[in-house]
Amino acid sequence: MLHEDKARGVIACSAGNHAQGVALAARRNGTKATIFIPSIAPISKIEATRSYGADVRLIDGVYDDAYAAALKFQQATGGVFIHPFDDIDVISGQGTIALEILEQLDDVDAVVVPIGGGGLISGIAATIKTLKPECRVYGVQPQNLPSMYTSFACNQRTKLDYSYTFADGTAVKLPGELTFKLCQKYVDDVIVVSENEIASAILALMEHEKTIAEGAGALAVAACLSNKISLTNKKIVCVVSGGNIDMHTLSSVVTNALKYNHRLCTLNVTLLDSPGQLRDFSAIISQEGGNIVEMDRNYDLEDIAMNSCSLRFLIETRDLEHFENIKTALIDNGYNIKL
Amino acid sequence: MLHEDKARGVIACSAGNHAQGVALAARRNGTKATIFIPSIAPISKIEATRSYGADVRLIDGVYDDAYAAALKFQQATGGVFIHPFDDIDVISGQGTIALEILEQLDDVDAVVVPIGGGGLISGIAATIKTLKPECRVYGVQPQNLPSMYTSFACNQRTKLDYSYTFADGTAVKLPGELTFKLCQKYVDDVIVVSENEIASAILALMEHEKTIAEGAGALAVAACLSNKISLTNKKIVCVVSGGNIDMHTLSSVVTNALKYNHRLCTLNVTLLDSPGQLRDFSAIISQEGGNIVEMDRNYDLEDIAMNSCSLRFLIETRDLEHFENIKTALIDNGYNIKL
Repeated sequence: MLHEDKARGVIACSAGNHAQGVALAARRNGTKATIFIPSIAPISKIEATRSYGADVRLIDGVYDDAYAAALKFQQATGGVFIHPFDDIDVISGQGTIALEILEQLDDVDAVVVPIGGGGLISGIAATIKTLKPECRVYGVQPQNLPSMYTSFACNQRTKLDYSYTFADGTAVKLPGELTFKLCQKYVDDVIVVSENEIASAILALMEHEKTIAEGAGALAVAACLSNKISLTNKKIVCVVSGGNIDMHTLSSVVTNALKYNHRLCTLNVTLLDSPGQLRDFSAIISQEGGNIVEMDRNYDLEDIAMNSCSLRFLIETRDLEHFENIKTALIDNGYNIKL
Repeated sequence: MLHEDKARGVIACSAGNHAQGVALAARRNGTKATIFIPSIAPISKIEATRSYGADVRLIDGVYDDAYAAALKFQQATGGVFIHPFDDIDVISGQGTIALEILEQLDDVDAVVVPIGGGGLISGIAATIKTLKPECRVYGVQPQNLPSMYTSFACNQRTKLDYSYTFADGTAVKLPGELTFKLCQKYVDDVIVVSENEIASAILALMEHEKTIAEGAGALAVAACLSNKISLTNKKIVCVVSGGNIDMHTLSSVVTNALKYNHRLCTLNVTLLDSPGQLRDFSAIISQEGGNIVEMDRNYDLEDIAMNSCSLRFLIETRDLEHFENIKTALIDNGYNIKL
């Protein structure tokens, strides 16, 4: 970095990990960093960026709003703006990930990479296709905000309206100019995944790899686990690109994923309001190996007899078949089950 | 393994990772494994052991009950029993962890290791003290079932009554004979940690290392984070020895740790039962930067005026100081707060 640039400080904007990267690099190089982060970013990302000594400015809205604020600030102050993805140096840096992959697994068949603005995949794809052209490179976006997917399909950069995805690190409405060109040239295909598929991937990474990924970080694994990429007899590397997720959000994600995979199931039942009813009902669930983790009473049902009560149970189960077995056992014993 | 041993199969018992290790080794060596697991073990450990092809027998009770059942089965069948910790080959295997530590960080000052029966730490401590005697080795146990800690302090093997700890992998009532002798000889000190300290360590590993540890696996980190080992200017390695924790348990652990660290706080308040009360109350919490994540009504209070209602709020906060600020703001505005 030039001496006069250092004096002016650096400016960045990011909904992902670029904020922390720039903040840390600025501190190590003895310069000031002003970082614009959209207010939708998780608190953990904001706090981590602050902890590296950056001046963090929270901007109402999404990535594109933070980008506009950063540009305005750059014009006012003359600082050095470091684009989170549409920057050849940033893209080249991301390319080193591909070097590491090839060094560690030289017979890799495919690399799967999350896409937000497209910087990460541009660097990886350009490097892979230069050194090992037969290796496939796939990009993955959240179905809720598939700006690169749409641009790729329409063969032109396309700006989308914002739509919420908990893969907040990839919530970019318009791909970069440079990254779009590089993706067109080097990426084999772009795939989309649903919010439930992302949540299931986070759960799988926790259970099987003992690793925490954020929504954006789990996109590649989500694409593979939902069979959107052919895995048979292939060596596939999924890039897990971030783990900044609030613990409270993570709890909700795990619960949602357990429900989506039928490992937490809801049963509504109407019981007579008399002693022993709950004992008999729960005995059947217990016999079938279900574990009741929550129970509450539904006070609002209108079509219920006055001598009855409606209860909602949340039950831990192994899978859909296990849940079906529990339901069948309850119905066989005369219970009135609603889902 | 001798040919005639292989034909008879292997037998093991474990509340920890020994079950999975033996199951996998048996399958790779083409022999049958019968593994006795206490019923308190998490489902994930049981299922993982089954997935390696072992015949899993669930035994009511804790590790010591599974051990008794395994011995009985060994006498009946003549299979080869592989003790989870009091076995010189198992201990030697654990010693390779110390070799890896010294290889990767030759100027390590201390190694901190979880203790259940004592096999893991015996192998590590014997190796460390042989190769680098000035390096300290500390053991950590859950305060709820500190059998090695007590034995170490009393200078004799001491059997404790069972007491629940969610560090289930270390729930052993009596240390091994061999492991107790090795710990006396090679371990500098044994430390205990509370259930809340273990939960906080699991949370810290998730947030800062993006790693999932089970209760037993997080003991060493818990000892360091609760300042029970002097860290200043020291290079300390914490052995994180397992990550088999049920996702439902993990959710509870995270919630408990957030509460223990004042990042989730409960407020009880009595409000007048009239329009606008909730709006005014929640406006103050929002102004102070608190995030309401749960609210419910307490129907059971007896000393409450008929024109009032009692509400419980669960609020996401940054720390104790933040929570105190929110309470002060509410009290200053005339609210009747109970904790």
